[in-house]
Amino acid sequence: MKYPSFLILIALLWSGDANSQDHQHAYGKALTFPDIPGFKTLKCDLHQHTVFSDGEVWPSIRVMEALREGLDAISLTEHLEYQPHREDIPHPDRNRSYQLALEEARDHDLLIIHGSEITRNAPIGHSNAIFISDANALLDENAEVPFREAKKQGAFVFWNHPAWYAQNPDGNPILSDFQRTRIKNGELHGIEVINTFDYAEESLALALEHNLTIMGTSDIHGLIDWDYLEKGNHRPVTLVFAKERSARSLREALFEGRTVAVYNSLFVGRPEFLVPLLKACIKIHRVAYIPNTDILEVELENSSSSDLLFENQMGYTFYSKPPVFEIPAGKKILLQIKTLERKGKLDLRLKALGAYTAPKTQPVVTWELLPE
Amino acid sequence: MKYPSFLILIALLWSGDANSQDHQHAYGKALTFPDIPGFKTLKCDLHQHTVFSDGEVWPSIRVMEALREGLDAISLTEHLEYQPHREDIPHPDRNRSYQLALEEARDHDLLIIHGSEITRNAPIGHSNAIFISDANALLDENAEVPFREAKKQGAFVFWNHPAWYAQNPDGNPILSDFQRTRIKNGELHGIEVINTFDYAEESLALALEHNLTIMGTSDIHGLIDWDYLEKGNHRPVTLVFAKERSARSLREALFEGRTVAVYNSLFVGRPEFLVPLLKACIKIHRVAYIPNTDILEVELENSSSSDLLFENQMGYTFYSKPPVFEIPAGKKILLQIKTLERKGKLDLRLKALGAYTAPKTQPVVTWELLPE
Amino acid sequence: MKYPSFLILIALLWSGDANSQDHQHAYGKALTFPDIPGFKTLKCDLHQHTVFSDGEVWPSIRVMEALREGLDAISLTEHLEYQPHREDIPHPDRNRSYQLALEEARDHDLLIIHGSEITRNAPIGHSNAIFISDANALLDENAEVPFREAKKQGAFVFWNHPAWYAQNPDGNPILSDFQRTRIKNGELHGIEVINTFDYAEESLALALEHNLTIMGTSDIHGLIDWDYLEKGNHRPVTLVFAKERSARSLREALFEGRTVAVYNSLFVGRPEFLVPLLKACIKIHRVAYIPNTDILEVELENSSSSDLLFENQMGYTFYSKPPVFEIPAGKKILLQIKTLERKGKLDLRLKALGAYTAPKTQPVVTWELLPE
Amino acid sequence: MKYPSFLILIALLWSGDANSQDHQHAYGKALTFPDIPGFKTLKCDLHQHTVFSDGEVWPSIRVMEALREGLDAISLTEHLEYQPHREDIPHPDRNRSYQLALEEARDHDLLIIHGSEITRNAPIGHSNAIFISDANALLDENAEVPFREAKKQGAFVFWNHPAWYAQNPDGNPILSDFQRTRIKNGELHGIEVINTFDYAEESLALALEHNLTIMGTSDIHGLIDWDYLEKGNHRPVTLVFAKERSARSLREALFEGRTVAVYNSLFVGRPEFLVPLLKACIKIHRVAYIPNTDILEVELENSSSSDLLFENQMGYTFYSKPPVFEIPAGKKILLQIKTLERKGKLDLRLKALGAYTAPKTQPVVTWELLPE
Repeated sequence: MKYPSFLILIALLWSGDANSQDHQHAYGKALTFPDIPGFKTLKCDLHQHTVFSDGEVWPSIRVMEALREGLDAISLTEHLEYQPHREDIPHPDRNRSYQLALEEARDHDLLIIHGSEITRNAPIGHSNAIFISDANALLDENAEVPFREAKKQGAFVFWNHPAWYAQNPDGNPILSDFQRTRIKNGELHGIEVINTFDYAEESLALALEHNLTIMGTSDIHGLIDWDYLEKGNHRPVTLVFAKERSARSLREALFEGRTVAVYNSLFVGRPEFLVPLLKACIKIHRVAYIPNTDILEVELENSSSSDLLFENQMGYTFYSKPPVFEIPAGKKILLQIKTLERKGKLDLRLKALGAYTAPKTQPVVTWELLPE
Repeated sequence: MKYPSFLILIALLWSGDANSQDHQHAYGKALTFPDIPGFKTLKCDLHQHTVFSDGEVWPSIRVMEALREGLDAISLTEHLEYQPHREDIPHPDRNRSYQLALEEARDHDLLIIHGSEITRNAPIGHSNAIFISDANALLDENAEVPFREAKKQGAFVFWNHPAWYAQNPDGNPILSDFQRTRIKNGELHGIEVINTFDYAEESLALALEHNLTIMGTSDIHGLIDWDYLEKGNHRPVTLVFAKERSARSLREALFEGRTVAVYNSLFVGRPEFLVPLLKACIKIHRVAYIPNTDILEVELENSSSSDLLFENQMGYTFYSKPPVFEIPAGKKILLQIKTLERKGKLDLRLKALGAYTAPKTQPVVTWELLPE
Repeated sequence: MKYPSFLILIALLWSGDANSQDHQHAYGKALTFPDIPGFKTLKCDLHQHTVFSDGEVWPSIRVMEALREGLDAISLTEHLEYQPHREDIPHPDRNRSYQLALEEARDHDLLIIHGSEITRNAPIGHSNAIFISDANALLDENAEVPFREAKKQGAFVFWNHPAWYAQNPDGNPILSDFQRTRIKNGELHGIEVINTFDYAEESLALALEHNLTIMGTSDIHGLIDWDYLEKGNHRPVTLVFAKERSARSLREALFEGRTVAVYNSLFVGRPEFLVPLLKACIKIHRVAYIPNTDILEVELENSSSSDLLFENQMGYTFYSKPPVFEIPAGKKILLQIKTLERKGKLDLRLKALGAYTAPKTQPVVTWELLPE
Repeated sequence: MKYPSFLILIALLWSGDANSQDHQHAYGKALTFPDIPGFKTLKCDLHQHTVFSDGEVWPSIRVMEALREGLDAISLTEHLEYQPHREDIPHPDRNRSYQLALEEARDHDLLIIHGSEITRNAPIGHSNAIFISDANALLDENAEVPFREAKKQGAFVFWNHPAWYAQNPDGNPILSDFQRTRIKNGELHGIEVINTFDYAEESLALALEHNLTIMGTSDIHGLIDWDYLEKGNHRPVTLVFAKERSARSLREALFEGRTVAVYNSLFVGRPEFLVPLLKACIKIHRVAYIPNTDILEVELENSSSSDLLFENQMGYTFYSKPPVFEIPAGKKILLQIKTLERKGKLDLRLKALGAYTAPKTQPVVTWELLPE
């Protein structure tokens, strides 16, 4: 007999369930990140596989995984040219995985983005074309065709795992002439700086040098639970800062490079988006001097699902914490600042040690404090 | 990019992994049950589905799930007549799911049993034929054919979820004339008393009345992790008591009815197997009188992965525990028995409250105690 | 430097604390039991020790332990005649421990009951006199004096750990002539059936035979955290059913025997109080038939802090659960009853396997079900 | 009735206990730090209080707390001049707390150091004299006397919580003329840089400027479990690097300044001891290139009970980790270094972000790697 899959989801979310709390505990809660001024923050995993290429699950599972982890958008980017299950799934239509995901998501609030993975050996490598209208049209011997066709369809295209050692034995990405041309032609717009468990500083350097959108993806083939959640991790995601929560707005934001790639406590993005994001992650609750002292007590809450690591950059020292300290995901901490004299107003300045705006470059975030 | 699935398993089992301990904790360890005198205890889940019928995963996932939970044998019993994914997997060969599981299990120590689910509406209902040689031969309009053919192939056949309310609105199984004939003809040999989350006392009654082998199965369609593990449960299994750990021996044991169905703390089986199993689950470690008292201290260890619930049936009372007490899975407890005078030898007699040899009938298990 | 102890408590309860959740998890939450019709349910631990007899902490710690575990009333019952710390605390005033606890509790909502332990060897044994006005007046060579004096002061007196093997090598309590006389004289009113980790059925038998109030106490000397909480247990308590939450009302209830002794999942009490308590512990949330079936779904919530173990006593069987099942503390479960035909009204009848109204006698509790 | 306290300890350590595992889990294990070349690493908490000054427990509890947390040495430093419990413990002998701790520790492997807290208001403040022979001789109106007497007794003396805002409203320690004289006279040898939850960079600066031994202490008054363990923390300790595990050797090491103060992930000490300690904390397990790549895989194990936070200082980048990464206490991680070409030998260079050798100064630690 079979229970409809959405029932499993309901059972899971049913707070009264004798074990769901423990489950919540074991898994950490869903991914959570605040919006930033002017934009909605959309949690996206735009590089995934199912049985329709070399993955091991039906598209329905990908939809449920995304709902459980609280994502806003996913794309099932099956390899166009690599179909190891062809013998059993002799599907001529490369759009099928997308259609099945759409169907599964019909009654849920999840954006399904139509995508495909253009799969070539180095130096061309792998690239995802998302926001396409017909995957079949991307199939061609000539590697230039899928990129040209993707552009024709208005797709956003990004380079996958540039540092992958199977394609670069020293783990350093090399931008090929082919790719330089694609960029010149406006046929390549983004680059993965985080793929699966791996962050490559060199990929970030390329993103900045060639003005490519910064991406982070799970590239999942098996189960999100086995690869990430049960180890206490979340999947890597691309946070996209969109005018509204829609596919149209998401596409626009990607083309404009409004992203931050996140994997657990690692944040990678351009300062104009990463700094506001980190600033929004921390809520300032109470700012008051300890009676009869010049020590300012500040209650900070981390409203995100990532542990955040900071280093004091103020002229003042802390009373109870060392300069380097963590605010765990969803928790509050108390900071005691020795301001030497009572201040009416001052800036809390912290370097985010887990965040990068460029290789080895961590941003400093500032919050204005107004003591009671 | 893709990590070979066995790597995921290795990563998982790598004890050094920063989170694997917590994982172990969240999931409980693998299913563990001791052998009983004369037989190996094989942990089997012989009713499962994949994308080759109405399941949501590739057969490889079923193999990995089984390895993670420590099973000895599985069968992928795709519906012969119900193929909702036919449009994408237009497979004429009903043996394909079995072949793919075999391939995946090649390098692992897991028995893959060839099976299929014969799927009819009430009153015939659903039945699994396992240990078949060719599933395709079971396809026929006439419901009698698959049973006849299964017998010809030497299959062991059992009736699935007899109490399923979709087929019996009052949740009570009715043995149809069709099935009586199958039993008479030696074409039906077992019955599920536990399917998914459900135990039906009425199915147990039928098993005993018609001398059918007692079965417990997960009937999994989605993910074992979502339906069971993350809620703190294990999947239901059939413990089969086989002369050796082989498919041949497993088949023989099923035909001879040497089984106990287990779901977490629920045990259902014939007394000749259930009582030795429970007896073997409890190891007696230390039996000694507290100095200067007539109170006998007994250290009991539950070597199984199921919490075991007992009620005192001795003429003596306990010093520190109430008559009803639990020994958690894998843990030790200390029992203090007031024997009123020093005994050289006595029997520890406990009723297993979570075990059933017949509807509402719980077995009493005896261990001989020899005080130091 | 020193932080005032109440700050520790605040820090602990500060929900924002980075670790308090885990702490809550590790410790289980405070003890929780519902009121019963006509009475408030007061959680009391009326047998404890501090450095003022043979305990290892200052009275302030006992007050904080009680507040952390959510108790309503405690009594520090120092041994009158056993003062191993006399060399360092040469206190002539046996009321001192009480006074210090009162002081500590001044700003908290906790009832401090004035008590002392009258300490003799067998056959007289140990007894607690609580609700006394002056402990010093109970000091006397002659064992009859403290009992007579306690009665004069209006004290409620109960016999401690009657089965303690240090005083009864076979672990069986013997009611001495001395005690029979005390009972006859109205100088002994209660008896511990649970002390520390130990429940004695024979003590319960004595309580019923001699109409003594049923008591459960921790008799703590060290730390509640080390002896109970960190092992996943709560301390034993006496639930007292009082007209209001006051010392006066608590005393009255004890004299009238309105108590249930509880240790984790073990409940011991007279049926007139134990049955209403168990009935109140379970909230019935939703009662509705599964569409197109005769299976009634009932959502049950355990509102207490004790896991509750039940066995089905209805004429009907369950669809998904075995006859014996647990409702974990604070959790909900779904019961599916096969009523064979649609009922407008029926009784849910369950035996509480962890509850005793007499040795080996478990009560059956009934809840009326009105299907939607 | 009472269970001897050592039984509680045994019960706790009894690995078979149904809940001890969870307990271990909830509490984290004992404090663990490796020895460094030439020295044994002794875990010491040399500033604690009991009921004999303003603490809330008997000395026996302090001994058990220390054993449970795996300490090597403790000192009960009662305030000489502040005895809030004098009314109940009118003890003229200030050595009593030490004697009772000695007694309790008789059968355990724990060093009990005789100490007292010299308690004055600012600018003199509080100081601990340990390794004294008679505390009573330190009692005097004149603040110079206890220091002179302590020196006469061969005591090691350190300044307590110099930054405490109750004595310095701006939280900055000021070294008074009185203290300068004590240092000049060889009557003051150490300084707390960590006290309770507080680390003061300014105290570290003073330690370095005046060549004082760096100390970290809990200054516990209540319960270690409530203030530290249940929040997921360990108490602050002073790691003392002694020639052997003896009081004599411990004293010598303190006078020679061979210490590191540790509170959870915070390490404060002189580079000559802090760097070898951090180096010893990390065991290098396997160093091998990934086949067909120039990526060197290094398995690192953190053998300490503190999570360790590092930042890459090599010329090479990592394949899978960002430059800033953590190795959780007792866990292993896999580092993948892109060495660009195959190396026969190279240095792993990491900055320890949670460690300080001077205010805002973090040490770089080097490990030699020899690829297989």
